[in-house]
Amino acid sequence: MGRFAADLPRIDAKVLNGTLEALAARFGNRLVTSQAVREQHAHTTSWLPRQPPDGVVFVQNVADIQDAVRICAPRKLPLIAYGTGTSLEGQVNAPAGGIAIDTRDMNRLLAVHAEDLDCVIEPGITRKLLNEQLRDQGLFFPIDPGADASIGGMAATRASGTNAVRYGTMRDNVLALKVVRADGEIINTATRAKKSSAGYDLTRLFVGSEGTLGIIAELTIRLHGIPETIAAASCSFPTVDEACQATILAIQTGIPLARIELLDEMQVRACNAYSKLSLPETTLLLLEFHGTEADVAGQSERFGEIAKECGGGNFEWTMRPEDRTRLWQARHDAYWAARALRPGAEPVTTDVCVPISRLAECVTETQRDLRENRLVSAIVGHVGDGNFHTVLLCDMNDADEVRRAEGYLDRLVKRAQAMDGTCTGEHGIGQGKQEYVAGELGDEAIETMRLVKRALDPDNIFNPGKILPAD
Amino acid sequence: MGRFAADLPRIDAKVLNGTLEALAARFGNRLVTSQAVREQHAHTTSWLPRQPPDGVVFVQNVADIQDAVRICAPRKLPLIAYGTGTSLEGQVNAPAGGIAIDTRDMNRLLAVHAEDLDCVIEPGITRKLLNEQLRDQGLFFPIDPGADASIGGMAATRASGTNAVRYGTMRDNVLALKVVRADGEIINTATRAKKSSAGYDLTRLFVGSEGTLGIIAELTIRLHGIPETIAAASCSFPTVDEACQATILAIQTGIPLARIELLDEMQVRACNAYSKLSLPETTLLLLEFHGTEADVAGQSERFGEIAKECGGGNFEWTMRPEDRTRLWQARHDAYWAARALRPGAEPVTTDVCVPISRLAECVTETQRDLRENRLVSAIVGHVGDGNFHTVLLCDMNDADEVRRAEGYLDRLVKRAQAMDGTCTGEHGIGQGKQEYVAGELGDEAIETMRLVKRALDPDNIFNPGKILPAD
Repeated sequence: MGRFAADLPRIDAKVLNGTLEALAARFGNRLVTSQAVREQHAHTTSWLPRQPPDGVVFVQNVADIQDAVRICAPRKLPLIAYGTGTSLEGQVNAPAGGIAIDTRDMNRLLAVHAEDLDCVIEPGITRKLLNEQLRDQGLFFPIDPGADASIGGMAATRASGTNAVRYGTMRDNVLALKVVRADGEIINTATRAKKSSAGYDLTRLFVGSEGTLGIIAELTIRLHGIPETIAAASCSFPTVDEACQATILAIQTGIPLARIELLDEMQVRACNAYSKLSLPETTLLLLEFHGTEADVAGQSERFGEIAKECGGGNFEWTMRPEDRTRLWQARHDAYWAARALRPGAEPVTTDVCVPISRLAECVTETQRDLRENRLVSAIVGHVGDGNFHTVLLCDMNDADEVRRAEGYLDRLVKRAQAMDGTCTGEHGIGQGKQEYVAGELGDEAIETMRLVKRALDPDNIFNPGKILPAD
Repeated sequence: MGRFAADLPRIDAKVLNGTLEALAARFGNRLVTSQAVREQHAHTTSWLPRQPPDGVVFVQNVADIQDAVRICAPRKLPLIAYGTGTSLEGQVNAPAGGIAIDTRDMNRLLAVHAEDLDCVIEPGITRKLLNEQLRDQGLFFPIDPGADASIGGMAATRASGTNAVRYGTMRDNVLALKVVRADGEIINTATRAKKSSAGYDLTRLFVGSEGTLGIIAELTIRLHGIPETIAAASCSFPTVDEACQATILAIQTGIPLARIELLDEMQVRACNAYSKLSLPETTLLLLEFHGTEADVAGQSERFGEIAKECGGGNFEWTMRPEDRTRLWQARHDAYWAARALRPGAEPVTTDVCVPISRLAECVTETQRDLRENRLVSAIVGHVGDGNFHTVLLCDMNDADEVRRAEGYLDRLVKRAQAMDGTCTGEHGIGQGKQEYVAGELGDEAIETMRLVKRALDPDNIFNPGKILPAD
């Protein structure tokens, strides 16, 4: 399953060494070229083979990023922005070599504007660190992709997660960016105004560009007030169909669901085994509601009625924090529980997203495909968005199983696309899904993306080999 | 005040005539070159001088747009997409001549996906026509910029309006576009999936590009369920300060305001005179709440408490449609009431947007500026977004007044920008605000926009002379 991660041509070794010397002169021991650190910077939660960079620069401020770009770009040595390495499609691999720009030390919250519900941050701050620092002011940043990713990385991959159904994705929650371009100068994409019609939407151009158009050096992001009350609910359904139907009705009637997660039967079974739970081993929906006490009570009750109409059972809801944790236990443990289904196997995580009307069909066909091909995968879905993940557990030493897994992953993407969906709702293209974008949007979209890439990065120094297939 | 609308070089007259002949051969009497129709297609609600196109093609389907582009583009005759001509910054002017692509006959609702809360439309459908056709299904498209604009035009200018505070702007409500590019081929920007991380965000690149990168030929847009209950409220405040403070608190505490509009003292006075109302002649907030009966009652009461704390008086709220209309009467009539302040004067409409924490200061300074310069303008604000409009009533025959008005408009933009705001929240750049973008975002942003423009439209045939200042 390493077929998308071909090595690309590298710059001349002498030029590389000269560039590393120039970087060493500027950054001292903040340039690291040890094998271990380089390997680490190609290590992600992806199943794709590692392609380490030639070196890592630990940047501490915007000027560091600018200088690294000014040293590398003229020599055409690639630059790969690096947050926490939690991307899933090979986004931080260095197929053409190059320098990883590690932003872990750029993790400061620079300014909070409580009245405007926004803040200014450095790109390396992780969402948990950010939320700890915001809590005292009654504010939070809602996007939660699971991993404690850096916000810069989340912007670069257009991440989302469990509460996108209510709060949107990174697309919706980034107000403005400072981006270092190929000559080291800074592009300001927008102001702190909540909306603007002042020219092309540069902010959205860089959000989701996976570091291929420039390096995000600062972000202004939207915040939300911590809800007065949070309620949790859970409900079992006979099949995926009924669970999706309940989700559709809840959204249509305007219940402002904060989270609505589907766990398929296999995932519930995994959670029962892993977390010693005794949930009915059938499709499960887990929900969260945010608002005043009266709001969340009303929302929970309305959802309970809809769930019942749709054949749901075991509906429970609660506002007590300890009971909320209990109801959501299965979701919190989902990833590790799924892995425990088959210890030693390689977890191959992928996601697709379809219009919600097609979700039940897409999930059900995917389950059938897994069974027919004797593959093991749990399914977890952000069903409010029509987005779901499969964590396939593959024995990489079994060539036949790898072949079957490859076929499954390919069919999964094409199934979603055939239902007017997308090959990825939130993980991005990276290396792993390049071959699918043309099938989804057509050659004209790829050509347009390529024109943009060439216009902004004519020497292809920013994260080469990502998003766009080689010409 | 015509200084931004300089004529640009035109193509050779012989080439123009040949192109018009080719268009006539293809479109018959759907190519119109009469003076009256050409003038009409340069007539907008803008104060900018008219620059009519050389001809107008009334397109009926995507193939028509493609053919028009294929005929004009190789001869470098500009193409200007035209919806309803309600733009405010000269977006449909033809400073280099060219062909207006009038989409008024492309006004079909092509498909409604009620479960997915989306629909597919032709670009010329207006928001009122769309909402009439959706009503039976309990759905609506929320963006309301005031004018009954075409949805294609609204996407092109990244429009928003009174309920953006709850439902977002066109940026947030366009799922996918079909765009005709310079060679006449079609770019599909996205699928119907609610979210995607599949490469660059082409949808958002075209939303707000004012027809300068291609012509929007089809849109997939997000819909919402018609709220079970709508409540309206109104409240008077001693000054703009208190009204803005109440708005900030309401948003911070998470009241999901559907609309919150500020009318300044001058606007209220104008409405009292025009609509025979007897509102207290001081700052007024008008609100709307959407939800269940219990929701809107709770929201109205919570807002009422906040308003009282902030010094608001005369707070009223109601769920009865006829009383809602009465409360909102002032807002519905605002534009015509403002014009009646000074019959015969030219209304010069403009908008800016600032972080909400700076809104009161920005509005108050703007009011002072108006007084000091003996200018007449009412102010109406979408205060939840920090966005406000002034409708300046200017005697265009009084050179001194025109000079004072120009100074005022210039200071208004710079004031907003100095407060970390934007020169336009929702009207766009067009011709009128080109000189301000660099001051807001810096040269690097302009250069980036220019690189994108050149990459996608190297011959500058799509709406030349808009957004980007001449090199």
